[in-house]
Amino acid sequence: MTKRKIINDPVYDGFLSVDDPVILSVIEHPWFQRQRRIKQLGLTYLVYPGAMHTRFSHMLGALNLMGRALDVLKQKGVEISDEECRGAKLAILLHDLGHGPFSHTSERVLVDVPHEEITLLMMQRINEQMDGALDMAIDIFSNTYHKHFLHQLVSSQLDMDRLDYLGRDSFFTGVSEGIVGTDRIITMLNVHDDELVVDEKGIYSVEKFIISRRLMYWQVYMHKTVIAADQVLLGILRRARELDPTVFRFDPAAPDFLDRFAEVDDDDVMVAIKHWRHSDDPILRTLCASLVDRHLPAIRISSTPFEGVENDYFHGTGVLRNRSYDFADQEIKVLYKDGRCVDISEASDQLDRRFLEKQVTKYFCFHPKGEI
Amino acid sequence: MTKRKIINDPVYDGFLSVDDPVILSVIEHPWFQRQRRIKQLGLTYLVYPGAMHTRFSHMLGALNLMGRALDVLKQKGVEISDEECRGAKLAILLHDLGHGPFSHTSERVLVDVPHEEITLLMMQRINEQMDGALDMAIDIFSNTYHKHFLHQLVSSQLDMDRLDYLGRDSFFTGVSEGIVGTDRIITMLNVHDDELVVDEKGIYSVEKFIISRRLMYWQVYMHKTVIAADQVLLGILRRARELDPTVFRFDPAAPDFLDRFAEVDDDDVMVAIKHWRHSDDPILRTLCASLVDRHLPAIRISSTPFEGVENDYFHGTGVLRNRSYDFADQEIKVLYKDGRCVDISEASDQLDRRFLEKQVTKYFCFHPKGEI
Amino acid sequence: MTKRKIINDPVYDGFLSVDDPVILSVIEHPWFQRQRRIKQLGLTYLVYPGAMHTRFSHMLGALNLMGRALDVLKQKGVEISDEECRGAKLAILLHDLGHGPFSHTSERVLVDVPHEEITLLMMQRINEQMDGALDMAIDIFSNTYHKHFLHQLVSSQLDMDRLDYLGRDSFFTGVSEGIVGTDRIITMLNVHDDELVVDEKGIYSVEKFIISRRLMYWQVYMHKTVIAADQVLLGILRRARELDPTVFRFDPAAPDFLDRFAEVDDDDVMVAIKHWRHSDDPILRTLCASLVDRHLPAIRISSTPFEGVENDYFHGTGVLRNRSYDFADQEIKVLYKDGRCVDISEASDQLDRRFLEKQVTKYFCFHPKGEI
Amino acid sequence: MTKRKIINDPVYDGFLSVDDPVILSVIEHPWFQRQRRIKQLGLTYLVYPGAMHTRFSHMLGALNLMGRALDVLKQKGVEISDEECRGAKLAILLHDLGHGPFSHTSERVLVDVPHEEITLLMMQRINEQMDGALDMAIDIFSNTYHKHFLHQLVSSQLDMDRLDYLGRDSFFTGVSEGIVGTDRIITMLNVHDDELVVDEKGIYSVEKFIISRRLMYWQVYMHKTVIAADQVLLGILRRARELDPTVFRFDPAAPDFLDRFAEVDDDDVMVAIKHWRHSDDPILRTLCASLVDRHLPAIRISSTPFEGVENDYFHGTGVLRNRSYDFADQEIKVLYKDGRCVDISEASDQLDRRFLEKQVTKYFCFHPKGEI
Repeated sequence: MTKRKIINDPVYDGFLSVDDPVILSVIEHPWFQRQRRIKQLGLTYLVYPGAMHTRFSHMLGALNLMGRALDVLKQKGVEISDEECRGAKLAILLHDLGHGPFSHTSERVLVDVPHEEITLLMMQRINEQMDGALDMAIDIFSNTYHKHFLHQLVSSQLDMDRLDYLGRDSFFTGVSEGIVGTDRIITMLNVHDDELVVDEKGIYSVEKFIISRRLMYWQVYMHKTVIAADQVLLGILRRARELDPTVFRFDPAAPDFLDRFAEVDDDDVMVAIKHWRHSDDPILRTLCASLVDRHLPAIRISSTPFEGVENDYFHGTGVLRNRSYDFADQEIKVLYKDGRCVDISEASDQLDRRFLEKQVTKYFCFHPKGEI
Repeated sequence: MTKRKIINDPVYDGFLSVDDPVILSVIEHPWFQRQRRIKQLGLTYLVYPGAMHTRFSHMLGALNLMGRALDVLKQKGVEISDEECRGAKLAILLHDLGHGPFSHTSERVLVDVPHEEITLLMMQRINEQMDGALDMAIDIFSNTYHKHFLHQLVSSQLDMDRLDYLGRDSFFTGVSEGIVGTDRIITMLNVHDDELVVDEKGIYSVEKFIISRRLMYWQVYMHKTVIAADQVLLGILRRARELDPTVFRFDPAAPDFLDRFAEVDDDDVMVAIKHWRHSDDPILRTLCASLVDRHLPAIRISSTPFEGVENDYFHGTGVLRNRSYDFADQEIKVLYKDGRCVDISEASDQLDRRFLEKQVTKYFCFHPKGEI
Repeated sequence: MTKRKIINDPVYDGFLSVDDPVILSVIEHPWFQRQRRIKQLGLTYLVYPGAMHTRFSHMLGALNLMGRALDVLKQKGVEISDEECRGAKLAILLHDLGHGPFSHTSERVLVDVPHEEITLLMMQRINEQMDGALDMAIDIFSNTYHKHFLHQLVSSQLDMDRLDYLGRDSFFTGVSEGIVGTDRIITMLNVHDDELVVDEKGIYSVEKFIISRRLMYWQVYMHKTVIAADQVLLGILRRARELDPTVFRFDPAAPDFLDRFAEVDDDDVMVAIKHWRHSDDPILRTLCASLVDRHLPAIRISSTPFEGVENDYFHGTGVLRNRSYDFADQEIKVLYKDGRCVDISEASDQLDRRFLEKQVTKYFCFHPKGEI
Repeated sequence: MTKRKIINDPVYDGFLSVDDPVILSVIEHPWFQRQRRIKQLGLTYLVYPGAMHTRFSHMLGALNLMGRALDVLKQKGVEISDEECRGAKLAILLHDLGHGPFSHTSERVLVDVPHEEITLLMMQRINEQMDGALDMAIDIFSNTYHKHFLHQLVSSQLDMDRLDYLGRDSFFTGVSEGIVGTDRIITMLNVHDDELVVDEKGIYSVEKFIISRRLMYWQVYMHKTVIAADQVLLGILRRARELDPTVFRFDPAAPDFLDRFAEVDDDDVMVAIKHWRHSDDPILRTLCASLVDRHLPAIRISSTPFEGVENDYFHGTGVLRNRSYDFADQEIKVLYKDGRCVDISEASDQLDRRFLEKQVTKYFCFHPKGEI
C-alpha cells in the first residue's frame, strides 16, 4: 500500500493526491515551500482581491494536470516509462522555482538573470542534495531529453503550465472569460512523430483556449490599474536603489546567490515598502504610501504612443503587446483520424492565420490623478 | 446617474457593485485597505493552500450580502429607511476592522483587548474624520439602535458575517462541506416583532447552514495541522517576548495605540519570523525554521485529556470546543405562515435540541515528530 | 406584503423569484405549462444526454435576466415605468410560446408559419382572456412600442433570449465553451439615444459572448450527430405524410388551429415514432427504429458541396451556415465615457469587422453507416 | 490504441470516457437507450423544472464513479482483476435497467414485481444475447460473487448509485443542500476484511453525505407538491384501470413480458393522460387536466395522522418515512490507521446512533385547493 498525500486545491474539485516519495520530498524542500509566500499574480490583487493565490499552488496544480496528461497519453498507446513520468512531473512541479518577489514585475530589477535560469540553478542544487533524483527532470526541463514531447508538456503553446494558470487565475479573480475546458483539452492530447498534438475532436477546445488566453491577457494580466500599480512598485525599487544601491540587489555571480535569493519573498518587499513610508526622502515615501494605501496614479491606454510625457517617478509611458498565438513559438498541431497533422490555424474555421498572428500593441501613460 | 464601482469577487459570480459615496470613502480608508494584508484564516493556508483570502475580501462580501438581505426585507414590507440601510451596510463592512496579524491566533498575545473593541475604537476615529457619517453604523454595531434586527444582521446566529465567511472559506479551501445555500437563506429572511427570523420554507436551508458550520469547524477551523501551526506561532511570540519584552506588544492605553496597531499586519510577523531563524537563541530559531519551512510538530487529538505532557515550547496540550448552535446566544427563529414563531430546534425534524446543544470537546497534545 | 413565488432554477444559483400577479397568471396558463414538454434543444440530448431542459425553463430564465437588466438600467437613470417593466417582462416570458414539438427541426414541416407568428397569435388570444393585460407586451414584442430599447432587450444581438440560452445550454450540455459572463454583461448594459448599448468596460465580456456563441454553434447547435438525427426525424415525418397526409399537419387558417396546435408536444411525436416502428411500410419502420434505438446514419462534413449523392430517406445532403455577428441585424454598440458610441467591431481590438463578418459555410452528407 | 467514446455529462466536468467494447455494446442496447425516455425523478420537474434528467444519464454517471472507485482501491493494493472490474462496471451500469415509466410512483401499479427483479431478468436476457459477457456482472449484482465488497460498490449505504444520484439530483434541481464531496469520499474508500470501508480521514465527508441525503429527502424527494402530483398520477392510473382493466398492465408471467414492458416509457403515459383529458368519464378527465395543466391539489403535512378524510380520487392521506441511515442495512465502517474498524455512528462526533436511528414519520393529506 502506497503512502498517499492529499493536497487540497479548490480549483480541481477540492484536492489532488501525490504518492511518489521523490515528489513528496521535493514539495517539502524549503525552496518549494518558499513559493507559498510569492503570489502568482503579484499586485493583481489590488484589482481582483481574490487573486492572492501563490506560485506554490500553481506549481502543484500543474503537477496535477501533468499526471492526467501522462495517463491519457499512455492510454492512447504512447510509450512513457515510469522514470519518464516522474521526470516530467518533477520538471513541471519545479518550473517556476526561480521566481522571486512579485515575479514578473521585479524580475529585471532584483536580479539580472531571467527566472528560468534561476530555476535551473535551483533544480541543479536540489539534484545534488538528492543524489541525482532530478537528472531526468532537468533534461526534460532543458529540452535536452530525446523525447521532445515531454518537454512540450512542460513548455509549449499548450503546456500544463498555461493550462493550470489560465484556469487558476480565472478561478481566483472570478473572471469567467478565462475558464478553459482543461479536462477536455487534456483528454484530446496525443503524440505524433514525437510532437505533442491535439486530436481532431479537440479543435473547438483549443480555439476556446487561445481566445480565453487573449481575453485574460487584456482583462487581467494587462489590466490598466495593475499596470499602474506595477509602475509604482518599479518606481519604489528604482528610488530605493538610488538612495541605497545594495537594496534588494542580488548578484548571480556571488557564491551565496541562491541562498540569499531564496530568503526573500513578497512579504519582505511589502514590509520594506511600509517602512519606507517614513523615509526622509519625499519621493520614496510618497510612492510607498501610494502603493500601501492604494492611491494609484491615473493611467491611460491608447493605440498610438504618448508624446511629450515626462518620465520621472510619478509620470511615465510604456508599451503593451499581445499576440494570441506565437508562430515563432511551437505551433499547436491537430491530428486528424486519417493521420494528417496540420496547424490549428489551418484546422480551425474560426481562427485563421491572420487573426492568430494579429499582434495588438497598446501604449500607456500614467500620471498623478487629477493632473491633466 | 450614480457613480458605481465594480469590485471583483470570485465568490459571488465574479463581482459586486457599490454606489454609495460614503461606503466608497470608507473602503478607500487606509485602515480598511490594510485588511488586504491580513488573511482571513491565518495559518490555515499551510493545510489549504488556496486559503490566502483576506479579511478585506470577507468584509466586502458581507457588505454584498447585507445589501441583498435589506432588499429582501424591504420587498417583504419591513420598513427600513435609506439612512438605516447605509448604517447597516457600514456596520457589517467594518465589523472586522480591528483584527490584527493572524487574527484569532495572536489576538490575546499582541494586545490585551478583544478585536471587537478595537473595531469600535477604529470606527469612532473614522467617524470623527468623516463628520459623524458612521453615527448610525456605530449604534447598530454596538446594538444601541432601537431596531434590534439591524444589529442581528451584523451579529447573530444567522448574520451576514457567518453567511459570508462560511461560503468564502469553503470556496477558497475547496471544502465543499461548507457550501451554504446563501441566496436561499437570504431570500427566506424576515422580521417579526423586531427580531430577524426565517420564513417556514427556509427550515431546510437553516439546517444545512448549522450543519455546514459544524463540519467546517472540524474540517477547517480546527484542523489539527492548523492547530499545530498555531501552537508554533504562539511559541514563537512567547519566546520572542521573553528575549525582548517590547516585541509586537501594543498597549491599548497608549495615545498612539490605533496608529501603531494599524501599522502591523501578517507580513510584518512573517518577516520577523524569517529573521529570527538566524537568532542566537536556539529555541527561537528552531521554532521559526519549523514554521517557515513547514516542519510542524506532530499533534494528537483525543476525547480525554492528555496527562503527563511537558509544557515547553515544543510540547503542550490544549482543549477544543464546539457547539453547533449556542442557546446562550440568540436563537434562530422560524416564522410560520400562520404567524407562529418558534425556535429552529423545535421547527426542525432533523435537529432536535439535544443535537444542537451537544458540545463536542476534544483535547490535543503536540510534540516533535518522531517523539512518541 | 407581496405574494412571492420561488421558481427553482439550477442555472441561476438555484432559484428565481416572481411577485407580479399578472406574470404569475401567465405562467399558470396551460399554453405556458405546455412548454414543459418541449425540449429547448430537440434531439440534441442524443449527443449531450443532459440536454433535456425545456423551453419552459428557458423562458423563465430569460424573464429572470430581464428583471435584472431593467433594474440595472433604472439604476443608471434610464426612465422605465412599472407598466413598461411588466410589458418587457411579459414579452420575454412569452417570446417562444409558439414553438411546437422539436422546435426548429420540425418547424417548417408541421405548420407553414414561423414560430414567431404563432407566438404572436397565442399572445393575442391570452391577451383577450386577460382583458388586455398583455397590450404593452405585444407592442414591445412586435417592436411597435416607441421605446425601441425595450424591444432590443427581447430581440437583438444582445437580448435576454440569447443570454439565457447560451448560459443554459452550456449548463445542461456541460460544454464550458458556452459559459458567458451573463451578470457582467447585464451590469454593463445602458441606453443611449433609445438604443441598447454596452458601457466601455463591458467590451471584453461582449467579445467573450460573441465568441462563445460561435463555439456553441459548431460544438452543440450544429453538432454533426445532432444533424444526422434531425435528418432522420425529417425523413420520418416526410414518409409518414406520404402514407397519411393528415399526420401532424396543422393549418394556420383553420379556426381551431391554436387549440389543436397547443395539444401536441415532443411526447406525441416520440410516441408516434415508437408506434411506427411496427408499421407495414419498411422505410418508415426502419427510420423510426433508427431514431428510437439511436442507430443514426453516418454523416460527413466538408467545406465543399457533396456531389452525386442520392436524396432518398436514407441519404441526403445539406448546407450549414454561421456568422458570429450579423451586420444586417442590429449592431452591438459600445458607449464610451466621453459619450462616443461605436460598433463593437470598431471598439474591439480582438474582433475586427473581417472576423465578425466571416461566414462559415459547411456542407454535410449523410448515409447508412458502413456504406461509403 | 483503444477505441474511446466520450460521453458528455455536465455533472462531472463535462464528460466521461468509455473504452471497454463490452460496455460500449451494452450502452448501445435498445433497452439501455430506452432509459433516455425515463426521467430519474418522475414528476419532480413540476417543482424543480431543471429535473428533466434521465435514468440513462444516472446509470452512466454511476459507471463513471465506479471506474474511479476501482482505480482508488487498486492503487491502495486491493486485488481486483480486469474481469472483476468489468463485472462491477456492468453491474452498476445496468442496476436501474428494470425501471418503467415514472419509476417509483407507478412501480407497484404497472407491474406487480419490484424493479430490481425486472432488472435482473433483463440482465439475464442481454447476457444470453451476448454469450455470457454479463455472467460476473450478474453475480456481483445478485451478491453471489465471493468478493462481497464489489456488490457493496453497487448496493450499500455508500454505493456508487447513491453517490451519483445525490450529486446529479442536486445539480439538476439546483438544491445545493445535496452537494456531496463525491471525489473526496471515493478517494477515501478502502477494503477491510472483504468489506467496503472508509479511511479515517473521510469521516467528515461521510457525515456530510448522510446529512445531505436527509436534506435532499425532505427538500426534493418528499417535496409536498411532488407528492401531490404523484397522488394525482396514481389516481389517474387507478381510474383508467377501473374503466379499462388492461390499461398499462403488465404481467410478469407472460412470455412476452420483457418485450412489452420495454416498449413503454414516460412519454406513453403522458400522451395517454393528455388523451384522457377528453374522456367521457368526468373523474378521469378532471384528474388528467389537473396533471397536464399543473393544477395540483392542496397538500398538508403533519406529524400526526389526519383523521376523517375521505379517500376518493380527489382526497386522500398517506405516510412519509425517512431515516438517515439504516442499521438494518449495511453499516458504513470507518477504518483507522491503527487497523481498528468501527461503525460511523461510533466514529463520528457529530452523528451519534440516536441521531442516525431517528426515523422521521410525517403524514400527508391532499384535497382540492380552496376546500378546507
